[in-house]
Amino acid sequence: MQMQETLRGHTIHFKNAPRIIATGSIAGPKECAGIAGASVDRALDDDMFGESTFEKAECKMLSYAIDSAICNAGLDRERIDVLFSGDLLNQIISASFAARDFAIPFLGVYSACSTMSESIMLAAAMVNAGYVKNAVAATGSHFASAERQYRYPLEQGTTRPPQSQWTVTGAGACVISDRGEGIRIANATMGQVVDYGVTDVNNMGAAMAPACAHTIIRHFRDTDTGPEDYDLILSGDLGALGSRLLKDLCWEKGYDISQNHADCGEIIYDVVEDEFQGGSGAGCSAVIFNSYVMSKLRGKLFKRVLFAATGALLSTVSSGQGESIPCISHAVELRA
Amino acid sequence: MQMQETLRGHTIHFKNAPRIIATGSIAGPKECAGIAGASVDRALDDDMFGESTFEKAECKMLSYAIDSAICNAGLDRERIDVLFSGDLLNQIISASFAARDFAIPFLGVYSACSTMSESIMLAAAMVNAGYVKNAVAATGSHFASAERQYRYPLEQGTTRPPQSQWTVTGAGACVISDRGEGIRIANATMGQVVDYGVTDVNNMGAAMAPACAHTIIRHFRDTDTGPEDYDLILSGDLGALGSRLLKDLCWEKGYDISQNHADCGEIIYDVVEDEFQGGSGAGCSAVIFNSYVMSKLRGKLFKRVLFAATGALLSTVSSGQGESIPCISHAVELRA
Repeated sequence: MQMQETLRGHTIHFKNAPRIIATGSIAGPKECAGIAGASVDRALDDDMFGESTFEKAECKMLSYAIDSAICNAGLDRERIDVLFSGDLLNQIISASFAARDFAIPFLGVYSACSTMSESIMLAAAMVNAGYVKNAVAATGSHFASAERQYRYPLEQGTTRPPQSQWTVTGAGACVISDRGEGIRIANATMGQVVDYGVTDVNNMGAAMAPACAHTIIRHFRDTDTGPEDYDLILSGDLGALGSRLLKDLCWEKGYDISQNHADCGEIIYDVVEDEFQGGSGAGCSAVIFNSYVMSKLRGKLFKRVLFAATGALLSTVSSGQGESIPCISHAVELRA
Repeated sequence: MQMQETLRGHTIHFKNAPRIIATGSIAGPKECAGIAGASVDRALDDDMFGESTFEKAECKMLSYAIDSAICNAGLDRERIDVLFSGDLLNQIISASFAARDFAIPFLGVYSACSTMSESIMLAAAMVNAGYVKNAVAATGSHFASAERQYRYPLEQGTTRPPQSQWTVTGAGACVISDRGEGIRIANATMGQVVDYGVTDVNNMGAAMAPACAHTIIRHFRDTDTGPEDYDLILSGDLGALGSRLLKDLCWEKGYDISQNHADCGEIIYDVVEDEFQGGSGAGCSAVIFNSYVMSKLRGKLFKRVLFAATGALLSTVSSGQGESIPCISHAVELRA
């Protein structure tokens, strides 16, 4: 059923059908060995990307993805009215420093690993309202910068527990426009913070699954749809364990998503060593969405996709002070 | 001159005049000794606010400000459609944990000390477009949590240089609505990253002044206005030195803002000891705007105000890696 209102529940309906007219993506060697390898704009053989620090490499990847998306759209930079971006590093320095390379308005967002869908939602909202003509949504992450910020110095060689995930080295961006050919953004469901009390910072999948279930179910109810209406229900970076929890949580509420669910974290790697549950990080859903999934949407192999990236809103300080992990998931609905 | 278009340059014109119908604010004892003391909703005598850590106190203040704003608007929490918030702490934990207290959609933003104006801009954009009826914009900061995150442990008693500013302990929030009596948000100018190469992390005023000048001048040009059209041009937290630089930079471009400019950082404290250049932090403009300035707007002592909060988008990592400080300023125009 088509929604008539602009807002229903937590879901915004975009009447003017803003479109993703182009994407840009880049990923490291480990990531490109997986399903995204064939469809990224650039596959790196060296995850330092010619830079002297991990953080600078992360920033350069993000900048590359943004630039690629703009080029792929056939636009000059001056035609881009606003950039929405954020990342996992403290004070979102990758996004801010990448934005320095582009003399365009920049609105920084933070939603951990759900930054991709929050950025797309806000960019689509700005385009749909007629405020801007072309907006870019972008994010990325880097395994090494995330490890040393959130966990341990790599040099220490700390053992990773089996419930952990591997932060993706990569970035993705898309251009959202009020005209042109592209994938329509039909609806967006704003997430709210959900916290089931998980305190294990190595078990992000378990922490984030309830927030993802909350948003997906909210989306179904707000739009009078069900799992069968979507060719793909794509969660962010729950990993293998988190994906099982998500399916269980949805099933408990009467929605069986098992037939058409995939998780960016679960599918990004051919898990062979210590990726364990799969990929994570803001770059995980950014890379999978802006390369693999968008190529399938463009080829009409998927006609209707619900993309619900997921974010764990913790910091080393909050965990150190004994807090549990508040999580969130924002969803956007795409139509070929 | 009234703008006819929705977007002109970097400035969005809000045709439907979203309104700030209520505000909430809270500040620490040092802050309440200054001009904001008389108009905050709650003046703390203890900046720990009954909590065991600085970060928890910061989060509780933010939560208090949001709750106050909603109560002052006479609304139930269920009537709030979305919360825009962010803060200075790594991974914006104050905002995320405050959002956990409210079962409403949450969109995290990060723009350092310009978070207040970015949040207001996005909330107004959502309300003006008809996506939501009531939105909250909020941010805050805490002197002690900022010092230990960005600078040194307080216990170390490190001497502060004379160009430094004092991070404000306080939080502010406002409810933006599509109906009711209130202060109209007429226009919003999106800032872009400006970096003049300043590397002194103690001299935020000098780093941020060019970004602020860029946005203010952009606003004047986009709206065909000049300094004389505003009762108050309120910059974020440039402090005394940064404010002088801002006035010089605007003057060089042909705009003399000296007659009606004030800076939240410069006016918040009666500088008596080591606040030096004045206040800073996301809470600085949040407190001044949501208490003192809004009370003057409500009393029609100011009829037209340009509020350009300013943010320094650095992190300890970026500075440690020798980067200069990219800065940004977003502006919103308010009419009584």
